[in-house]
Amino acid sequence: MSTDRASTNGHASKPELDPNQGGDTNKKTYHKQATGLARETAEAHAAENDLKLYGSCFCPFVHRVWISLEHKGLAYEYIEVDVYRKPKLLLDINPRGLVPALRHGEWGCYESTVLMEYLEDLNEGRPLLPRDPKMRAHSRLWSDHINRHIIPIFYRYLQAQDAEDQAKFAKELTEQIAKLVSAADKKGPFFLSGDHMSFVDVQMAPWVIRLGKVLTPYKGWPEPEPGSRWEKWVRAIESAEPVKKTTSTDQLYLDSYERYAENRPNTSQVREAINSGTGLP
Amino acid sequence: MSTDRASTNGHASKPELDPNQGGDTNKKTYHKQATGLARETAEAHAAENDLKLYGSCFCPFVHRVWISLEHKGLAYEYIEVDVYRKPKLLLDINPRGLVPALRHGEWGCYESTVLMEYLEDLNEGRPLLPRDPKMRAHSRLWSDHINRHIIPIFYRYLQAQDAEDQAKFAKELTEQIAKLVSAADKKGPFFLSGDHMSFVDVQMAPWVIRLGKVLTPYKGWPEPEPGSRWEKWVRAIESAEPVKKTTSTDQLYLDSYERYAENRPNTSQVREAINSGTGLP
Repeated sequence: MSTDRASTNGHASKPELDPNQGGDTNKKTYHKQATGLARETAEAHAAENDLKLYGSCFCPFVHRVWISLEHKGLAYEYIEVDVYRKPKLLLDINPRGLVPALRHGEWGCYESTVLMEYLEDLNEGRPLLPRDPKMRAHSRLWSDHINRHIIPIFYRYLQAQDAEDQAKFAKELTEQIAKLVSAADKKGPFFLSGDHMSFVDVQMAPWVIRLGKVLTPYKGWPEPEPGSRWEKWVRAIESAEPVKKTTSTDQLYLDSYERYAENRPNTSQVREAINSGTGLP
Repeated sequence: MSTDRASTNGHASKPELDPNQGGDTNKKTYHKQATGLARETAEAHAAENDLKLYGSCFCPFVHRVWISLEHKGLAYEYIEVDVYRKPKLLLDINPRGLVPALRHGEWGCYESTVLMEYLEDLNEGRPLLPRDPKMRAHSRLWSDHINRHIIPIFYRYLQAQDAEDQAKFAKELTEQIAKLVSAADKKGPFFLSGDHMSFVDVQMAPWVIRLGKVLTPYKGWPEPEPGSRWEKWVRAIESAEPVKKTTSTDQLYLDSYERYAENRPNTSQVREAINSGTGLP
């Protein structure tokens, strides 16, 4: 990994300076502890449990798994991980110590979509996937769309520094979200019919939250058009209890994503992948 | 879509020239009908059936679903699709007419991994995913590795025109395959313990076939090291009946991938995505 600006700007005598700050103590970096309702939820799940979620409070991929656990009402332990100081039990699961990771007894796994499927396969608490094979396939098809066609553009847009690129990515993001919305149940409010969240809602929820709390303040992403199907969905996701209980206060997202919005070196593997044109890590 | 060289080289009077030939009638293009054992299997599944696989004989993503159908022993109809002349029943499923696509009664879906999960959810025939949630997660985690870290490099390598790039991608591909092999059952011969194919084997099988039949002749990809775990796995996959029954003769792959190996314009959306540094379509 590059040491970039942090190590070359003469700040070696200030060990508290985070590499994400790009050598400038005035810059914000990612938070290391949830705030608001998410903090309360983390504290309520601090006790040791056989099922452990290793996460970082600002990370949207962690957010997916956390929402799933809350939706299902499973007993679990939440362990906040500083991505630069990783605990051994997490490194046991994967030498890169990627989060989110779940440890269940002696076994562990990672990758948010894989972990959501795992929780589903436990067959405990409220399900997220419907029972009908066709509707399960429909859910997985559009989850794949989110992972491959929405999330990468979210980051390209957030990291874009010039106005022309920002306009281009805003248009692309709008188009890809429109495709997803057109596949949703016409009435709503969620992706599938009925009044409950399911797999696709949870896959998308962390980015719905971050569109409003990160892309809007940093890049001017517009509020959903009043009365639109998209607005109905956004409000339903924002109001869902498992989402609210795992979401921090606005300042946490503003601070944690400043480094992405400024496209600073050392931000994350996601940033490096987006900038280099390779897939997400 | 760009019309590229084909329309600017004065061949407009030869309607039989395929855009994939890059304006040169001596160039090979993709086959439009399976050969060898795959041809026999296609013919044995030509009769109308409620479950239809729309596919192209050279396409590895189609190959996955075809192997799955054969593994499970399901009744199905195989419909060969010329990617430039798509049937209405396929376009009903998705306006882009992507293959593989499954049509099951009035309903249809696409994306190979989603379709493999769908066939699994039908709960008919031999399963590909184990029952244990942990082993299912393990299977999905490494399927994701194949999709995100092996397949894109396969195409970058195949399309690389200069020796330095080829060496770089050969090294990357070797490393990513080594990670996958290290996650496989130590004894083998397949990915999970026991002597039967499962989900990860089928996800990887079409590329195992194309490493030997395409990357070796075009780019010098080496045969598996004798006695290695990788060799044991490759031979087991090559020898599996559902793989043999859906694999064409060598010439089909040589011809169909010439356009990739020469990185010709108009080859496919996969080629464009790899060249532009965006994700796979």
